[in-house]
Amino acid sequence: MSLTADQNAEIAALRAQTIATHRATVPALEEILFEALPVLDHGFVRVIDYMGDDAAVVQAARVSYGRGTRKVSEDAGLIRYLMRHWHSTPFEMAEIKLHVKLPIFIARQWIRHRTANVNETSARYSILDKEFYIPDADHLAAQSDTNRQGRGAVLEGAEAARILELLRTEALHSYQTYEDLLNVDEDGNPRDPGSDGLARELARMALPLNIYTQWYWKIDLHNFMHFLRLRADPHAQYEIRAYAECLLEVLRRWVPLTHAAFLDYRLGAVQLSATALTVVRQLLAGESVNPDASGLSKREWRELMDQLGRP
Amino acid sequence: MSLTADQNAEIAALRAQTIATHRATVPALEEILFEALPVLDHGFVRVIDYMGDDAAVVQAARVSYGRGTRKVSEDAGLIRYLMRHWHSTPFEMAEIKLHVKLPIFIARQWIRHRTANVNETSARYSILDKEFYIPDADHLAAQSDTNRQGRGAVLEGAEAARILELLRTEALHSYQTYEDLLNVDEDGNPRDPGSDGLARELARMALPLNIYTQWYWKIDLHNFMHFLRLRADPHAQYEIRAYAECLLEVLRRWVPLTHAAFLDYRLGAVQLSATALTVVRQLLAGESVNPDASGLSKREWRELMDQLGRP
Amino acid sequence: MSLTADQNAEIAALRAQTIATHRATVPALEEILFEALPVLDHGFVRVIDYMGDDAAVVQAARVSYGRGTRKVSEDAGLIRYLMRHWHSTPFEMAEIKLHVKLPIFIARQWIRHRTANVNETSARYSILDKEFYIPDADHLAAQSDTNRQGRGAVLEGAEAARILELLRTEALHSYQTYEDLLNVDEDGNPRDPGSDGLARELARMALPLNIYTQWYWKIDLHNFMHFLRLRADPHAQYEIRAYAECLLEVLRRWVPLTHAAFLDYRLGAVQLSATALTVVRQLLAGESVNPDASGLSKREWRELMDQLGRP
Amino acid sequence: MSLTADQNAEIAALRAQTIATHRATVPALEEILFEALPVLDHGFVRVIDYMGDDAAVVQAARVSYGRGTRKVSEDAGLIRYLMRHWHSTPFEMAEIKLHVKLPIFIARQWIRHRTANVNETSARYSILDKEFYIPDADHLAAQSDTNRQGRGAVLEGAEAARILELLRTEALHSYQTYEDLLNVDEDGNPRDPGSDGLARELARMALPLNIYTQWYWKIDLHNFMHFLRLRADPHAQYEIRAYAECLLEVLRRWVPLTHAAFLDYRLGAVQLSATALTVVRQLLAGESVNPDASGLSKREWRELMDQLGRP
Repeated sequence: MSLTADQNAEIAALRAQTIATHRATVPALEEILFEALPVLDHGFVRVIDYMGDDAAVVQAARVSYGRGTRKVSEDAGLIRYLMRHWHSTPFEMAEIKLHVKLPIFIARQWIRHRTANVNETSARYSILDKEFYIPDADHLAAQSDTNRQGRGAVLEGAEAARILELLRTEALHSYQTYEDLLNVDEDGNPRDPGSDGLARELARMALPLNIYTQWYWKIDLHNFMHFLRLRADPHAQYEIRAYAECLLEVLRRWVPLTHAAFLDYRLGAVQLSATALTVVRQLLAGESVNPDASGLSKREWRELMDQLGRP
Repeated sequence: MSLTADQNAEIAALRAQTIATHRATVPALEEILFEALPVLDHGFVRVIDYMGDDAAVVQAARVSYGRGTRKVSEDAGLIRYLMRHWHSTPFEMAEIKLHVKLPIFIARQWIRHRTANVNETSARYSILDKEFYIPDADHLAAQSDTNRQGRGAVLEGAEAARILELLRTEALHSYQTYEDLLNVDEDGNPRDPGSDGLARELARMALPLNIYTQWYWKIDLHNFMHFLRLRADPHAQYEIRAYAECLLEVLRRWVPLTHAAFLDYRLGAVQLSATALTVVRQLLAGESVNPDASGLSKREWRELMDQLGRP
Repeated sequence: MSLTADQNAEIAALRAQTIATHRATVPALEEILFEALPVLDHGFVRVIDYMGDDAAVVQAARVSYGRGTRKVSEDAGLIRYLMRHWHSTPFEMAEIKLHVKLPIFIARQWIRHRTANVNETSARYSILDKEFYIPDADHLAAQSDTNRQGRGAVLEGAEAARILELLRTEALHSYQTYEDLLNVDEDGNPRDPGSDGLARELARMALPLNIYTQWYWKIDLHNFMHFLRLRADPHAQYEIRAYAECLLEVLRRWVPLTHAAFLDYRLGAVQLSATALTVVRQLLAGESVNPDASGLSKREWRELMDQLGRP
Repeated sequence: MSLTADQNAEIAALRAQTIATHRATVPALEEILFEALPVLDHGFVRVIDYMGDDAAVVQAARVSYGRGTRKVSEDAGLIRYLMRHWHSTPFEMAEIKLHVKLPIFIARQWIRHRTANVNETSARYSILDKEFYIPDADHLAAQSDTNRQGRGAVLEGAEAARILELLRTEALHSYQTYEDLLNVDEDGNPRDPGSDGLARELARMALPLNIYTQWYWKIDLHNFMHFLRLRADPHAQYEIRAYAECLLEVLRRWVPLTHAAFLDYRLGAVQLSATALTVVRQLLAGESVNPDASGLSKREWRELMDQLGRP
């Protein structure tokens, strides 16, 4: 990730400014406000603004006039209670706004979460920067044999090198075509002064899905955690998980009590189907259970045994 | 509207607290933060928190790194442009959280706006206060003759007095039954120590629709204006309009440039149907237009002439 | 529940009409289309329309051109897979529209689910019918001692009789005031021809929360199940659960494969927090676990032991 | 647009099937059900299912038991009334489900409408077809000089030819890289049997934004019209307008009364700001108005004069 000197100066200017407010304020989040937290090779997450904190969740749940005189331990207890019983509305009372830079193919997964507000840079309006996502060698994986939508073994040696080269070359080739269509050179000047160039809204068609885009993204705490539950999951594509992990750390700074409850009741929790619950009860009663007669599919059985820590 | 001494103390404690933040802050809104702005006889609106200001709308529209060095006049121009062309996403980037006390029959209209977050006091959990909405004499109106869902002339004299008396008596009668069902006296103590009383979630059934409830309500600026457009409209019921007018003033303090654009392009604007536009063109061309042949209904014609300031 | 002769005739007329369609059609649901399924004393649920069936969920998940030649067993497997892995979008591709009659205090709980479309009878426009919810003796319960928002023991004998009498009398008293305010008699004629009566939008304020209202309610299959998961839960108030149970039967008729998966993975499933999972692993490994050192609250421990079928 | 023989057979099989239903059914829409309506060079729109018709909108608005015996003219009047007064909920009571094939850069605009349900083909799971959007010569336009996000003059002659060639070559080049990364040949067989190929979820990064994708898209009638209002607008990019125009025709077949009201009150309507309304009143009163003193910007003035048909 690299910001220009101008961008860094703009961020520094924002951070230099301090104003008095009566609102709920979170020092640990203020510490990183506006800063670009790096993700992938050119991406970032910037926290632009937030509303509310752990205590604000509690205050909304109680529809109270003030913030009360309760102790942190009581707030923690109520937050755990709300999370455990799927009370979503108090968590909707806090909000966060982010500036995110991410490759388009990840943006397309991300946007499927409809319960957020989004303002994206428009390639109808501006010329996109020459920045593409190229995976680290560690994340360059073959197609999975067993999972039609997953990754298998990491590629190595000559094959890895060949594939990285293909990705890089293709990205540059596409971008060159893009500039050619627009009739601009690297500095944004016309290549051929006698020619108009294709409209930006059409020229962008030549760009590949790993070019970076940017957006402002605003979401309430409840839906933020829903996003994290799905996207910090091991089944999610690595690239979006990389963002989710950065956001988990933002969550921890912002609302530490909620974050702890989230880890316990959502991210680290398991759901047992009615059938799986019956199996667990039988096992606890010391009965032997025949996988084939359990009502679970082979994969469900295997996953359940993994969750229960049984070989 | 009357708050208890405890409630006033809680609010004063919040207002006494001031913390430094890097976030966008609006002094004119901070001035009234947490205070109870009175509406109707016992209702209020309290601004609990907010995110963003006029400049934040602009910043999101530009997906920019900082707040830029543009002048207020440029921000005003962009905000007018966005409003005029129905660009909603930049306005979704600001958010406000309110604490509202309102009669249940108004709460039922209000909640029809689904694009907000709500936490309401639960009458399953708590006993509701003995506060009912009773209209001012000025707002005690007969059924309209011409509009099945509107009000006609204001009632006067003996009839007005009789109706006010009926409303007051009925409210007290219902509340007495409520306490009787709950087996509590005015101080919340059991009336009959040998009796259990009906569960709160059932006893509330006896309460009338003009009893007051409370909620925390959070909404983004775009949807806030949509709510105001519908509820500050003369066709809206007076009681919800009273809240909308209080909220319009909150809007003015919070985002003055957006507020001005909203008045021009939404609240004070008129929509001309294709048919009405044809009529206006004909009138401007000096042609005489026959209402019956215009394609407009009688009511549409009358409203158009009103809008155009023609007798 | 009682419909007028006119209403029954309207329903019969709809059921008599049969038209040919190419759309996905569900005979088991067509059987009860338009009929009023009774709930509580005067309420009902009527299925007005639906879009899609189990196969349509599968077809959408595959983004396919036709319905394919797969067997029911393959569809069942895919539906179970989608449900288990929280893939919500294919279930959003089916939709149902209901006409529901329900008491206002239940309507206020129901409407908190924002992801549905609603058209409610307006008491600004029409005069509401004289129908109130009065609980069966079986459901007339005292306030719970242990749960601030639950019910305790069922009331009996003289106290039950007294409370039922209070509820009935209060409802009639309120309705009489309502008619008095409106200046209408039982047949809808003016009581006092010289008087105007209060506007309907104000007179309704005197009505109690157990009067019945009606609405058209439309929701997609995913959000329908989310509603059912929360409202068919034993923690939900009995009166809304009565509706949820009726709707569960509608679900079974409409999409039997989805219904079966829903029972297994949602309604009959349990969620184990990370802490609870550790306890279960320890128990399965034959270790003894000290509740106080487990990290679970007393209530969580008790509920976990209940779920696991341990004394 | 070209479907395979298999796809055509699947569609024909669906159309051959006819079932009896009691539901609201629209013969004019049944006529084209499942058929692929061509848009752009390889795209299409297929109507997969629908719920409701014009009469169902009316029935929901009245919360009625049956469909009533009213005449079409009364339904038309009520629908016009609802549209004119921005009553959105009755229109939310009808729903349509489409299968759409469209280029990814258009899909990215389309998905910004969040109030719809979407199931998209996953390029993590499947290999995308070799189909790219290449504009017709008529739509190959230069960047606008006056509008940063619009098109200017259509390109002609050698420049047009050069640009078309660039677009075609780039698409093929990218797709070849895609196959190379996946290690598959044109028939889907491994190119190099000793190599694994890159995971599909990564290989897709090389694809350009004009490759076609597909989705199932379901939306209610109110939000469908909102989409059409924005996307059938002359300011919308031509390519998405091409879809909107196809959808307008679907709307006409489905709900002809609503379609007519939509054209009058939305698509053909103009909104006059409070400032513009003042200008119109002055003009009608025969006053001369100075554009610079009118309060309108130059562009607003010009657009207003256009709308009013004044030179």
